[in-house]
Amino acid sequence: MRERAQRQGIFVSFEGIDGSGKSTQARALAECLRTEGRDVVLTREPGGAAGAEEIRRLLVEGNPERWSAETEILLFNAARRDHLEKTILPALDAGKIVITDRFADSTRVYQGAARASLRPLVDKLHALVIGLEPDLTFLIDMEPAAALARGLARKSGEDRFEDLGLGFQQALRAGFLELAQANPARICQIDGARPMADISAQIAQIMRAWLDRPAP
Amino acid sequence: MRERAQRQGIFVSFEGIDGSGKSTQARALAECLRTEGRDVVLTREPGGAAGAEEIRRLLVEGNPERWSAETEILLFNAARRDHLEKTILPALDAGKIVITDRFADSTRVYQGAARASLRPLVDKLHALVIGLEPDLTFLIDMEPAAALARGLARKSGEDRFEDLGLGFQQALRAGFLELAQANPARICQIDGARPMADISAQIAQIMRAWLDRPAP
Repeated sequence: MRERAQRQGIFVSFEGIDGSGKSTQARALAECLRTEGRDVVLTREPGGAAGAEEIRRLLVEGNPERWSAETEILLFNAARRDHLEKTILPALDAGKIVITDRFADSTRVYQGAARASLRPLVDKLHALVIGLEPDLTFLIDMEPAAALARGLARKSGEDRFEDLGLGFQQALRAGFLELAQANPARICQIDGARPMADISAQIAQIMRAWLDRPAP
Repeated sequence: MRERAQRQGIFVSFEGIDGSGKSTQARALAECLRTEGRDVVLTREPGGAAGAEEIRRLLVEGNPERWSAETEILLFNAARRDHLEKTILPALDAGKIVITDRFADSTRVYQGAARASLRPLVDKLHALVIGLEPDLTFLIDMEPAAALARGLARKSGEDRFEDLGLGFQQALRAGFLELAQANPARICQIDGARPMADISAQIAQIMRAWLDRPAP
């Protein structure tokens, strides 16, 4: 893995439960930065590269019960490794801003909510084959019941909100908030219950402040 | 991972270069043991379970160059984990003899021959998510040029002999022989240049001696 310091780009991730509006906000930030003339790569997980999208199909199509949690973690890491090599690192090396809809925090939280004892495996695999963390993570926080009421979490294609159930979404929300508390310098917690435009404006403001911060 | 001692079955693997005749010998041993009334599960890697076969298709179909060595190792381990959970461990727990055409030694040798620096990653992943070694491994050893001349290595479907080239097959052979030297109690080296029936007879004899050995 190349050293972080050698790269010129900025790596931003969006995280949150299904229906939190994070995909919409990731797109909005990408558009906002592009209108400012910045070179942005908008991507997502699982997927984000041709091979990773093939692996994504194994994860999101067919019966998800056919994979054990351990096999699923290995597949997520295989997809993430491909995404990293083919999409994220080349863009960062070229000085671009990479915005990804989900990254390793999703694996930490989803697998941790399913079975807390899996967390050491998740962390060891991440250290072994990924190693990279975003410079900045926007956690779009939302009460699962509110996400459901707002209609963002309606089942559509790969949307797993209803499959997973409200109780599981509440465990996911708690997991994300715990990660944010443990990583305050990286993870920026955003109240997702407000109007979309207000949230976009807040995120753009934080991003601009981050971009304009004095060099260390 | 459950402890080895709790299981009642016997785990046997066949290893060797493409065209060494190991698949034929694995089948022959399975048939021989079945005629003796033993309960045998004959399987193979990558694959050997429904989910693992889905992952196999990512590895053997399409352009193999689309995966980096690291992503490929993760996919092999995902397939192996599924194979282990769904096929190997249940059969061993039921007291059966499991015979697999390839297992972790293939990953060690193929990835090691491609890039020696990958071996630590291969070993760490194996320890983290697989943990199991065969009780007995038959390495069908053969000079790659002889395998080619005998017509066993002819390209057919997934056969990669010609794709990989003679030089790479020689590196693989050396890798397998090195593993056999390092694991003399587990890996039984078999001269694959003799008539098939002679090889089958020798393997059956070794297997019978192993089955009849006094309990430790």
